[in-house]
Amino acid sequence: MEYRISAKMKDMKPSAIREIFKSLSDPNMIAFAAGNPSPESFPVDAIRRFSADILQNQPITALQYSITEGYPPLREAVAARQKKRFNVGREGDLTIITSGGQQALELACKVMCDEGDVVICENPSFIGALNAFRSLGTKLVGVGLEDDGINIQALEEALDANPRAKLIYLIPTFHNPAGITMSLEKRRAVYELAYKYGVLILEDNPYGELRFAGEELPTIKSMDERGIVIYCGSFSKILSAGMRVGFMCAPEAVIQKAVVAKQVEDVHTGILLQMICERFLTDFDTDGHVEKIRDMYRRKCSLMLSEMDKHFPPGVTYTRPEGGLFLWCTLPAGSDMPAFVAQALKKGVAVVPGTAFNCDESAPSDSFRLNYSTPSDEQIVRGIGILSGVLRDVNG
Amino acid sequence: MEYRISAKMKDMKPSAIREIFKSLSDPNMIAFAAGNPSPESFPVDAIRRFSADILQNQPITALQYSITEGYPPLREAVAARQKKRFNVGREGDLTIITSGGQQALELACKVMCDEGDVVICENPSFIGALNAFRSLGTKLVGVGLEDDGINIQALEEALDANPRAKLIYLIPTFHNPAGITMSLEKRRAVYELAYKYGVLILEDNPYGELRFAGEELPTIKSMDERGIVIYCGSFSKILSAGMRVGFMCAPEAVIQKAVVAKQVEDVHTGILLQMICERFLTDFDTDGHVEKIRDMYRRKCSLMLSEMDKHFPPGVTYTRPEGGLFLWCTLPAGSDMPAFVAQALKKGVAVVPGTAFNCDESAPSDSFRLNYSTPSDEQIVRGIGILSGVLRDVNG
Repeated sequence: MEYRISAKMKDMKPSAIREIFKSLSDPNMIAFAAGNPSPESFPVDAIRRFSADILQNQPITALQYSITEGYPPLREAVAARQKKRFNVGREGDLTIITSGGQQALELACKVMCDEGDVVICENPSFIGALNAFRSLGTKLVGVGLEDDGINIQALEEALDANPRAKLIYLIPTFHNPAGITMSLEKRRAVYELAYKYGVLILEDNPYGELRFAGEELPTIKSMDERGIVIYCGSFSKILSAGMRVGFMCAPEAVIQKAVVAKQVEDVHTGILLQMICERFLTDFDTDGHVEKIRDMYRRKCSLMLSEMDKHFPPGVTYTRPEGGLFLWCTLPAGSDMPAFVAQALKKGVAVVPGTAFNCDESAPSDSFRLNYSTPSDEQIVRGIGILSGVLRDVNG
Repeated sequence: MEYRISAKMKDMKPSAIREIFKSLSDPNMIAFAAGNPSPESFPVDAIRRFSADILQNQPITALQYSITEGYPPLREAVAARQKKRFNVGREGDLTIITSGGQQALELACKVMCDEGDVVICENPSFIGALNAFRSLGTKLVGVGLEDDGINIQALEEALDANPRAKLIYLIPTFHNPAGITMSLEKRRAVYELAYKYGVLILEDNPYGELRFAGEELPTIKSMDERGIVIYCGSFSKILSAGMRVGFMCAPEAVIQKAVVAKQVEDVHTGILLQMICERFLTDFDTDGHVEKIRDMYRRKCSLMLSEMDKHFPPGVTYTRPEGGLFLWCTLPAGSDMPAFVAQALKKGVAVVPGTAFNCDESAPSDSFRLNYSTPSDEQIVRGIGILSGVLRDVNG
């Protein structure tokens, strides 16, 4: 039977990363490709205690239908933490709970964009967001990155050229995949441009808690006196990725529609998991726990960078992240990237080629993404050694 | 600031039921409006044990990212149970896990329908499905119900009149809100009509396990030799509604796209909850548990019906369900339904007016939905007494 798939889904492919993730079920594969938090970052004992306690004392709340907006004590706890840590949320803003940061991004686009509307994205950018925008029939317009964030001149040109632009999607802090952080000056410039062109900013901050070097920078949402920033975050990188609990803080008019959109997707996010997240924020040394994760990633990132410094051939460049999970490595122009990635996989190291993160999937890339949170220290050393050999072979 | 909400979300309103659900936070309100399973139906002790055991022995699996298709042992267990209970799933079909049955319905429509396409629905029908279809910019065409299911002649006329029809959405067993079950003859007729017109059937079976009277009837999916039925179900009514775990069984070509669509919505369903569901199916007396729920709902439904038989004024008619959670009550033609519902709410009984379930939200309805799974026995007796008084007042 021939199935007539909808136009917007017909050409959609599974995320390259999710597909690579499947290949990682091979335990011998060194996983530099994933975006997984380190399993050591999960506070397993605390989660076990919270879960037991909730199911002992509030079983019906944990197992019955709940409201779409999210478990009220969690909404309050998230709003309080985002305010304290990132000065996020003003009068007129509301915070709701979503099924991971992924759902928050998808809902924001669904609420603001019609088919054919334009989402301006950093290029490269987070593939999960790009695919969500694509699935809604929007057109992606990529704007290149510099070391201190999006190219402001190119952003203004893109806004000028695309009157149907409705959103500017940004990961200002510890960018995925590029590993860079947008400067304060550029954050201000982007905010002013968005206001000038009447376009909302979708600020994605899943890694903001994970700074292990450099100075904190204000979120764009913290500057949002005009109600033009939709801000999203997640528990995936500080508590558990598998729980799928995230959140959105945005002006009430946007949140109201996001709630309706969420209602038809999943009614609400699993309530037991929301209750565990609430306990994590209110009944646990959250700051101390996050500090431990930062220490771990600082060490792993340093180890990866020092091995790369020692072994990678000249001409290969890479970012030096101040936080987050990723660094971005660029081969000399004209290198055979598909050959490099295939060769690395064959030798037991999985990396993600930069093409996967392009707004235009057919555009080439000289870069690939490396993740240091998932592999063990020993795997980092061995994996970078293998990649060094492959780099020399390919660029031989 | 004026926010330009997308065309498809601009006119979407929150589900009337979810909104009424909020009013139910008043503990004195008698909740005949909800669609909640009875809290007594949750196997709390078992869930506590499964959760503790999973977090003790497989914490990393439970807390790390997983694959979009669902936890593989759960997919197997669901497929096995649906095969055993409902003869669902043939060669060429795949089963995936979704965030509640709600997500399965939304994904099916997203995969098969473009904006402007038509979904043919029973009228009245489940509001969560109707809203999901609306949010995707499809047009709903309602076909009336008879005591033994959808009006077959009207269905054929609707198929004839709507060449853009892509899906026929049906709840053949223990219909929500109508409380009826489609006859075997009509199941066969619908299947043949769908095939004749090249339209897929979306069969929603969230209540199928909950038969407490009459004879089992085959699912439409069990007849699906041609691969034209997308079948959805859920753990909400037999284990826990708040966990948000459901499933879809459909031909591989549909499932492949549904997986991509799910990936951009929430990456995957909370994995700890999926693992608890798997244990419920494989390490528990599932059949015995379901039998207990059936006994409870048989008793509650009988109690509600006998109170209605005793006290409702003549001219008020209602369905006599053989399973599920709902019965559907119709006032004499021309009754003032909004006045009745408002009056009932004022006297402390919440019911849902039939208009909420209409494909055309502006169409009137002489009916309202009653739920017997949520209220206690005492509330059923007291609530039906109050409704009887209001009915006499309104039709006075």
